[in-house]
Amino acid sequence: MNVNWTKLLRISTSITKSLKLRSTYAFCHHATTVDEIDEEVSKLLELKAKLGDGDTKTKYVLKAPKGTRDFTPKQMVIREKVFDTIIGCFKRHGAETIDTPVFELKETLTNKYGEDSKLIYDLKDQGGEMLALRYDLTVPFARYLAMNKIQSIKRYHIAKVYRRDQPAMTKGRYREFYQCDFDIAGPHDSMIPDAECLRIVYEILSDLMLGEFKIKVNDRRILDGVFEACGCPTDKFRPACSAVDKLDKLPWVDVRKEMLEKGLAEEIADHIGHYVRMSGSHELVNQLLNDSFLIKSKSAVAGLNDLKLLLEYLELYNIMDKTSFDLSLARGLDYYTGVIYEAVLTDSSVNEDPDRKKGETVGVGSVAGGGRYDGLVGSFDPKGKSTPCVGVSIGIERVFAILEARSENSNSRTTETEVYVASPQKNMLKERMKIIAELWQAGIKAEMSNKKNPKLLNQLQHCEENGIPVAIMIGSGELEEGNIKIRDIKTREESLVPRSAMIEQLKDILHQVRNGES
Amino acid sequence: MNVNWTKLLRISTSITKSLKLRSTYAFCHHATTVDEIDEEVSKLLELKAKLGDGDTKTKYVLKAPKGTRDFTPKQMVIREKVFDTIIGCFKRHGAETIDTPVFELKETLTNKYGEDSKLIYDLKDQGGEMLALRYDLTVPFARYLAMNKIQSIKRYHIAKVYRRDQPAMTKGRYREFYQCDFDIAGPHDSMIPDAECLRIVYEILSDLMLGEFKIKVNDRRILDGVFEACGCPTDKFRPACSAVDKLDKLPWVDVRKEMLEKGLAEEIADHIGHYVRMSGSHELVNQLLNDSFLIKSKSAVAGLNDLKLLLEYLELYNIMDKTSFDLSLARGLDYYTGVIYEAVLTDSSVNEDPDRKKGETVGVGSVAGGGRYDGLVGSFDPKGKSTPCVGVSIGIERVFAILEARSENSNSRTTETEVYVASPQKNMLKERMKIIAELWQAGIKAEMSNKKNPKLLNQLQHCEENGIPVAIMIGSGELEEGNIKIRDIKTREESLVPRSAMIEQLKDILHQVRNGES
Repeated sequence: MNVNWTKLLRISTSITKSLKLRSTYAFCHHATTVDEIDEEVSKLLELKAKLGDGDTKTKYVLKAPKGTRDFTPKQMVIREKVFDTIIGCFKRHGAETIDTPVFELKETLTNKYGEDSKLIYDLKDQGGEMLALRYDLTVPFARYLAMNKIQSIKRYHIAKVYRRDQPAMTKGRYREFYQCDFDIAGPHDSMIPDAECLRIVYEILSDLMLGEFKIKVNDRRILDGVFEACGCPTDKFRPACSAVDKLDKLPWVDVRKEMLEKGLAEEIADHIGHYVRMSGSHELVNQLLNDSFLIKSKSAVAGLNDLKLLLEYLELYNIMDKTSFDLSLARGLDYYTGVIYEAVLTDSSVNEDPDRKKGETVGVGSVAGGGRYDGLVGSFDPKGKSTPCVGVSIGIERVFAILEARSENSNSRTTETEVYVASPQKNMLKERMKIIAELWQAGIKAEMSNKKNPKLLNQLQHCEENGIPVAIMIGSGELEEGNIKIRDIKTREESLVPRSAMIEQLKDILHQVRNGES
Repeated sequence: MNVNWTKLLRISTSITKSLKLRSTYAFCHHATTVDEIDEEVSKLLELKAKLGDGDTKTKYVLKAPKGTRDFTPKQMVIREKVFDTIIGCFKRHGAETIDTPVFELKETLTNKYGEDSKLIYDLKDQGGEMLALRYDLTVPFARYLAMNKIQSIKRYHIAKVYRRDQPAMTKGRYREFYQCDFDIAGPHDSMIPDAECLRIVYEILSDLMLGEFKIKVNDRRILDGVFEACGCPTDKFRPACSAVDKLDKLPWVDVRKEMLEKGLAEEIADHIGHYVRMSGSHELVNQLLNDSFLIKSKSAVAGLNDLKLLLEYLELYNIMDKTSFDLSLARGLDYYTGVIYEAVLTDSSVNEDPDRKKGETVGVGSVAGGGRYDGLVGSFDPKGKSTPCVGVSIGIERVFAILEARSENSNSRTTETEVYVASPQKNMLKERMKIIAELWQAGIKAEMSNKKNPKLLNQLQHCEENGIPVAIMIGSGELEEGNIKIRDIKTREESLVPRSAMIEQLKDILHQVRNGES
């Protein structure tokens, strides 16, 4: 590498010199200082670019960016069906939808995601505002509520979010991925909207027919209460929480070890461990409400009382058989303040992890999660006015992965074409054009060959390969007699129809085809 | 401003010193040089941040980034209707759909957009690949075809694209905006897919009921032929082209002036001006095919012959009354190689430009545009294998703007709720929950209050304000007798129904409501 050291040194020296000079005038010229540093920096970066260019001439690689993917027409058909199902559920619950930009002001995303903030994609500073790609849909939603002073809304939002995480495509972990969020903001009585969010999870996972699933429920206030009662120092709540969160993947000994490494005393860790390994239902809530040690924490009591109410509501919503109260559920995000939940698929067939050996315990993937976040909107409001919110996010990429694997061998269509306009003869392009324009005008989905004189075999093959049920066959003889032929692609039966009755006849046939399919 | 000059100077000096030191060892330590500069730069930037923090403490502004916007539920309803209409047309023509990531490798977008490349949003270099937000959907489509070696496809793609342009929101010009693209790639006979693209424009603009419109058609080869025949130097083709492109906004004298400024001789400019101000139909094509001066250019003849064929096809597709051959149409993008077209709305009501004075000539906004680009896919193919493509892009933001303005005073719904579960009495929450769960289970769109004991007036008001047609009224008296009341919100009529027949009755009523609306 031929580094131009002389030049590099010269630039650095001149920066130093100019800074020395400027420092003398510091008190009269302060306004531009930051800009000047910018200039210096850009000089160094330019130099870097030149140095880099000279020797590491990279070859263009034809690919989508790391961690992202294109969706093929076949994948899009699955994706659209899944979205239709999910949107159907959201609309059944009276939700509206909104959309926000793919990027936000960098500051909007600051201090929202704890440790994970390092995974945010920043945009280059090209002059103007500092921007970053959205990391989830919850923070933009909170920004939207605060900005528009909306005090009450039930909304869904389906859109892509971005995380510079290590991708694991086989597990459905991408850097660009969809989130399907449903949230209820505004005044309410305790646990009513929270129960509806859980009912939504139940309906969507049932409607998608993904097999058996289980919904785990907990409350941040109960967890915090456990930490408090066990004597965990307040500043260790979040670290302890993130250790507990790993209990679904690691045995207790490992989680305990992490707690000790994070500075918790042995007896405190063990005491926490006693609680967070509990799971159950109503009876566990009652047991804990009678636990004289735990109920010293007001936070725990508040959480337990609300959870008791929530479980009653879930009974009325007919979903208690899918739900368990699980004290190990902690969830990563900082902004949760109350109830939290997560749904996992329990059919072993969908949980085969290609990275693990057969027989090994398999980490069950979460397909939905959420909770209550009553403080987030207030963090955007100039006066700190808070708006209570609860929501759920469907982990759609995992759902896609499962359904794609299932449909791999099926021959589902990627177009909806109903009629193919064909001709067994040459020089019929103009007739084909006239007829197809009539079909389009009548709202019939129709295709024809892009060739002037396509071969009959190719035309019929196209119909068979693409599942097009009907073809119109245009022959000059029939046309002269004022007729056209309609061909059933499957049975290969053909019927002669007066040209003037073509549209009517086709509509009848297509109606039958549609009913036959369903 | 309290700039810490001493500190700034110290850092800069130390950078200079360390660079001096490193230069001595340059030949043994070259590998990390670029990283070292990075480190130096980050030190300076850190210092800048500290300086900035201390005194120019920027206040957080609660907003969406410049040139972007949120879509409210009301706007989303319009947006979804428009998309349904457009997708309906694409599917009627047998198109599949794909999706690509929101960002591409920076190199994928390089040398595709000519001058406009400066408007591309780059992502920050956070290690790893250099990325940029997509500028249109055509280049990602070409990348997708080349990467997957797809030789023939008819696809549509609806997604957001990004341009760091000066926003003009009142005109529907945003930095984040939707494009709706339809393209036909692959082998074909001349002008058959091109004519279909124009038919698509016609169908979509008709289906959207935007009022009168006109489609202008031209061919890059005809324009180039004019430049060639008039003696314009080859390197001036594109500059001349971009001057001609302004003829829809500027009078000829101004366009002529731009041509002279770009170095064209007066007689050449005037000669070009003679041609590019022509517009007409079949007869103009024939006239030009007999223009002994112009037909010296092979390119012009090829373009004119194809255009003649195209106009014949458009006649068969019943859209010639909307189409004109317009030699001033040039279009900005570099990648077009043949037919080009653009659709404009001609109803004066939709063309009112708030930035212009009344009575002034109004620049008619383009709502769709496209053309043939036979070279783009080849530019990505490692062996340069080309795939002919033709496509059209619908300028959807302008369509939104028009339809939003139209719907401003209408009271369209943003939810689809069919039944509201209400109670005139206290302590009926559990009954409401049981009943609403039944409705959801039956696929009925239903809502209820989030309060334990909501006031009857509030419940009924919610129905009226949100256009919910039916309410179920739960009273303890009726329940004991095994009945519930169904209330028609508009007529305020109530009927008593056996609890066991509730779902069936509701479905009947909702069926009637739906038919009454349509």
